Amino acid sequence: MKKIGVFTSGGDAPGMNAALRAVVRGCIYYGIEVYGIRYGYKGMIEGDIIPLNSHSVSNIIQRAGTVLKSARCQEFREPEGRKKAFDNLKKFGIDALIAIGGDGTFTGAKVFFEEHAIPVIGIPGTIDNDIYGTDKTIGFDTAVNTALSAVDNIRDTADSHDRVFFIEVMGRDSGYIAIQSGIGGGAEMVMVPETKTTINEVIEALQKGWSRSKTSSIVVIAEGDEEGNAFEISEKVKARVKDLKDIRVTILGHVQRGGTPTAQDRILASRLGLSAVEGLRDGKSGVMVGVINDEVTFTSFGDSITKQKPLNKDLIRMVEILSI
Amino acid sequence: MKKIGVFTSGGDAPGMNAALRAVVRGCIYYGIEVYGIRYGYKGMIEGDIIPLNSHSVSNIIQRAGTVLKSARCQEFREPEGRKKAFDNLKKFGIDALIAIGGDGTFTGAKVFFEEHAIPVIGIPGTIDNDIYGTDKTIGFDTAVNTALSAVDNIRDTADSHDRVFFIEVMGRDSGYIAIQSGIGGGAEMVMVPETKTTINEVIEALQKGWSRSKTSSIVVIAEGDEEGNAFEISEKVKARVKDLKDIRVTILGHVQRGGTPTAQDRILASRLGLSAVEGLRDGKSGVMVGVINDEVTFTSFGDSITKQKPLNKDLIRMVEILSI
Amino acid sequence: MKKIGVFTSGGDAPGMNAALRAVVRGCIYYGIEVYGIRYGYKGMIEGDIIPLNSHSVSNIIQRAGTVLKSARCQEFREPEGRKKAFDNLKKFGIDALIAIGGDGTFTGAKVFFEEHAIPVIGIPGTIDNDIYGTDKTIGFDTAVNTALSAVDNIRDTADSHDRVFFIEVMGRDSGYIAIQSGIGGGAEMVMVPETKTTINEVIEALQKGWSRSKTSSIVVIAEGDEEGNAFEISEKVKARVKDLKDIRVTILGHVQRGGTPTAQDRILASRLGLSAVEGLRDGKSGVMVGVINDEVTFTSFGDSITKQKPLNKDLIRMVEILSI
Amino acid sequence: MKKIGVFTSGGDAPGMNAALRAVVRGCIYYGIEVYGIRYGYKGMIEGDIIPLNSHSVSNIIQRAGTVLKSARCQEFREPEGRKKAFDNLKKFGIDALIAIGGDGTFTGAKVFFEEHAIPVIGIPGTIDNDIYGTDKTIGFDTAVNTALSAVDNIRDTADSHDRVFFIEVMGRDSGYIAIQSGIGGGAEMVMVPETKTTINEVIEALQKGWSRSKTSSIVVIAEGDEEGNAFEISEKVKARVKDLKDIRVTILGHVQRGGTPTAQDRILASRLGLSAVEGLRDGKSGVMVGVINDEVTFTSFGDSITKQKPLNKDLIRMVEILSI
Repeated sequence: MKKIGVFTSGGDAPGMNAALRAVVRGCIYYGIEVYGIRYGYKGMIEGDIIPLNSHSVSNIIQRAGTVLKSARCQEFREPEGRKKAFDNLKKFGIDALIAIGGDGTFTGAKVFFEEHAIPVIGIPGTIDNDIYGTDKTIGFDTAVNTALSAVDNIRDTADSHDRVFFIEVMGRDSGYIAIQSGIGGGAEMVMVPETKTTINEVIEALQKGWSRSKTSSIVVIAEGDEEGNAFEISEKVKARVKDLKDIRVTILGHVQRGGTPTAQDRILASRLGLSAVEGLRDGKSGVMVGVINDEVTFTSFGDSITKQKPLNKDLIRMVEILSI
Repeated sequence: MKKIGVFTSGGDAPGMNAALRAVVRGCIYYGIEVYGIRYGYKGMIEGDIIPLNSHSVSNIIQRAGTVLKSARCQEFREPEGRKKAFDNLKKFGIDALIAIGGDGTFTGAKVFFEEHAIPVIGIPGTIDNDIYGTDKTIGFDTAVNTALSAVDNIRDTADSHDRVFFIEVMGRDSGYIAIQSGIGGGAEMVMVPETKTTINEVIEALQKGWSRSKTSSIVVIAEGDEEGNAFEISEKVKARVKDLKDIRVTILGHVQRGGTPTAQDRILASRLGLSAVEGLRDGKSGVMVGVINDEVTFTSFGDSITKQKPLNKDLIRMVEILSI
Repeated sequence: MKKIGVFTSGGDAPGMNAALRAVVRGCIYYGIEVYGIRYGYKGMIEGDIIPLNSHSVSNIIQRAGTVLKSARCQEFREPEGRKKAFDNLKKFGIDALIAIGGDGTFTGAKVFFEEHAIPVIGIPGTIDNDIYGTDKTIGFDTAVNTALSAVDNIRDTADSHDRVFFIEVMGRDSGYIAIQSGIGGGAEMVMVPETKTTINEVIEALQKGWSRSKTSSIVVIAEGDEEGNAFEISEKVKARVKDLKDIRVTILGHVQRGGTPTAQDRILASRLGLSAVEGLRDGKSGVMVGVINDEVTFTSFGDSITKQKPLNKDLIRMVEILSI
Repeated sequence: MKKIGVFTSGGDAPGMNAALRAVVRGCIYYGIEVYGIRYGYKGMIEGDIIPLNSHSVSNIIQRAGTVLKSARCQEFREPEGRKKAFDNLKKFGIDALIAIGGDGTFTGAKVFFEEHAIPVIGIPGTIDNDIYGTDKTIGFDTAVNTALSAVDNIRDTADSHDRVFFIEVMGRDSGYIAIQSGIGGGAEMVMVPETKTTINEVIEALQKGWSRSKTSSIVVIAEGDEEGNAFEISEKVKARVKDLKDIRVTILGHVQRGGTPTAQDRILASRLGLSAVEGLRDGKSGVMVGVINDEVTFTSFGDSITKQKPLNKDLIRMVEILSI
């Protein structure tokens, strides 16, 4: 293995740049040439490929987003597109790949690896934390802290009035951000896609708080909740509780994708980036690198894509007990 | 003047506690007793009044919200309610008032002062900055920085994709937060209640950016815009631009009311709190204290309520030039 | 078990209040009365003990420090002091204790538990993370992020000049904060108490960077380094490298003890607080509760005090590779 | 005027990039070509000059430091050096300059302008705020908030113990950062170069606090205080007060030069950048652009360098009253 190509794909996550930096410097340390493929699979097909050196990744460890950019790519879903991509890699002499991204990225990498037998290792980067094979994904800790900071701000003002606040955080298929920011922010209720929460249960939780003379309440909602988005849920609650005058809604949206990565995200990203290089050197391929119980582990793309990482039920239980 | 009563009323704003602290310590410095009236006019009517000393306001300078709490009060709008309130003040021997709040607070204070001839000075605390008689209101600088931080986070991720982001910030009648966070965040367009911006103008600004191959664009919208809220505006834009696939919306909401107050908000609040005490000692009344051109000034409640503070047109011009 | 007393002792750490909140609400959930002992062992001896309810711990989850206060206490080191403390607990009917603190706190708790047979469970709260029996201590994640933010700020400016920056972070006996903020901040060198780093090694690392035309370098030093504090080390380096004009020193000090606790610190604290209550209910005693590999575990005070938690050598290795 | 050259010089300050962005986009708006001179006067002499366009300054408004870099330059102090610099400017066709920096930068600009008659406008960028001709300099608001955040963190922990904290902030010749972060942070005492504060006065202030049973005290010291740095002052206090066991020192250092610029710094920088371009178009030269009382103003380099901007005495008075 002499030349590694590295790229980011799918939604960006804070810490991706730290992972890239670790890949580049890990390669240099081991005497491997390293190329950056810009705009993910799209750049691979179009040959948007540039050599990287130590300076290329100076001063990016603290920056969100991805300096290699990211893009969607329909063409890579077709064998012809992948053929073109592979030809480009050959042209540059790239004989192994590191793919930083989420489920969709790994699905592409798996097919590509099976079709063209080029060694690939994936690094899990997504704020949603919904990837099997690693305790945490890059970007998750930052996103939770961003969401938490919003909950904190609302709690500052909530304390001064009688109000119900609904805060919608990210997580279309996964309640990780909602549950952690909900516990961390002392929310009265958390609604996640993994468990069914009815509007009546929300109302009960709110009423329990009022009966203890809480002056205001916070409900954190993951965007993928089956009862709808935060506006819809707030309307449903309002419709059933009379005299509920003051309801306010916050939709955080992509605010959660940005922000300076936290220490844990940078350290995780650095560790995964370096381990991906070392994994390729050790002959590993078709796998995603992760950290489980503070140990570096490798999981087949197949498992990482199809297996479910369950939400810690202990945390769901805590929301109820701690909002007493 | 021997006993001053102080209260917060209306929507809370970061820095109100710093103002309260300055009122209390200013009173102590000048040998005046000071009482806190909890829950604004409501507490005045109900006699929810407590003595304050130096320790009462320890360690609150950095906290958002208001430790004196705030509430709405229908009863104070009636002469009977105000009579009850005045009787309570007499009972406690309170012979002057300091009211921390916004327009609504000062309207109540003005009537009360005219009816019962008790000296009152107002301190402008509202994140909207829409009060005549002071360059800035307490809480505005913090709210702008909170909104800006959201714009920054979105810019982090915007840089990696082709997208249009609509961010709704506070300001029902005033575009101050929108214009300042828009300039500070390098937005492509800012929509404020003070000026009419059509959907076509938004689309033109976006298209100008695309023609310069900008990969993503940010539009900051004050909640009071006549074209609707951020969701509605985004739908209108989508309806008229074909092939505009990727639009995302953030509604910050009450996140902007919280957060640790900035240095400028704390210093302004400290200065206004102390000056309010000194103003009462100097025999001033029926006025709001403010800072204009770094000088403490007093403006009659009448002017502060009815006169308009115009948005700096120079800033509106800057948005367009700087997003080139 | 009917009444639990809870206290904080030793140096405070961000998240202690979140742990206290979880203890109080956990007790309420299980129908146990709960008392707060103010100023740690000192308050126990002096009878500074107050009943706590759900409202007592409202709105403290996000606040650093400890609302129960902390203090040193010489008297508790003597059997007579401990006897007085025990008598006070009996007077209040307190039949079990939860101690939030570090090594010193647990040493006291161990002796007390052995002498008076009152059930005690400890919760590890210290920014240093140097306690055996838990992957992380409460406050560590926050402290690392605070230190990291300082390194980031310095990197911002370092990028513009030719300079060497020495940053001293906390950790008298432990390099955890130094190593994590060093990796997260992309430092050129980290000096920790666990390993011997000579001044010559520092100079070599700096010169390696200069030879790669790095314009500036950052050295993170744990306060307990055997070569001295940051000023002393900077002087030693200056003495041996001629033409090294520009050296700057930052001593963060207690800045690292404060700050809003991170999501991870709050969640850890909440989990440990609740688990401590549940541990006492299950008959556990003389143990510290911790989280290892995401599982709640109990470790005897003896082990938690005497056993060493080693610094992950993998992280030390990473500093060198990633600063290439 | 067809080609403007822009550079940053001296110590960097957060917001310099925002000023650069405004200069570049202002030039584009007015149809003027714009070149970046890297490393200040050094780059001018060495011909390190690059064309800038709208994209060159994308996504830098939120970044501290200066993308044009900064450097010291002995050679520019000699007429020969300045001649070389001027010849380079001629080679590129640059017929006007915008200099972003502090006193030293303007001193160089003044001589250069007088010697070679090339139009120059200066933009005040320094965290110290010690420049005559503008209410605030770029970077000051950010630096104050950074220092304030450190004071806040220490206050969090100070509240839990009996301690005296000495915090040294920047300001060799100017107490602006010290006084503002001291008031904002509720410090017991502030020591600034502008006024003489004896060690005995410090001790008196501390003892006054102790007599009111304050549990801890914070003293903010500007680095240029005549009694020495924070360590030296803490030692002097310790020597004279017996039983003063617990003194802690923080030296913030260059942490204050970094950090994401605040909204006010970005808006000020944007306004000054654009106004500098417009000033050159209007034929202004040999002047610094500033904002006084919210109006753009131009001050001759001579005045801006030699005249003193006094510290607001009202603020000094406030420290004492508010720490009661």
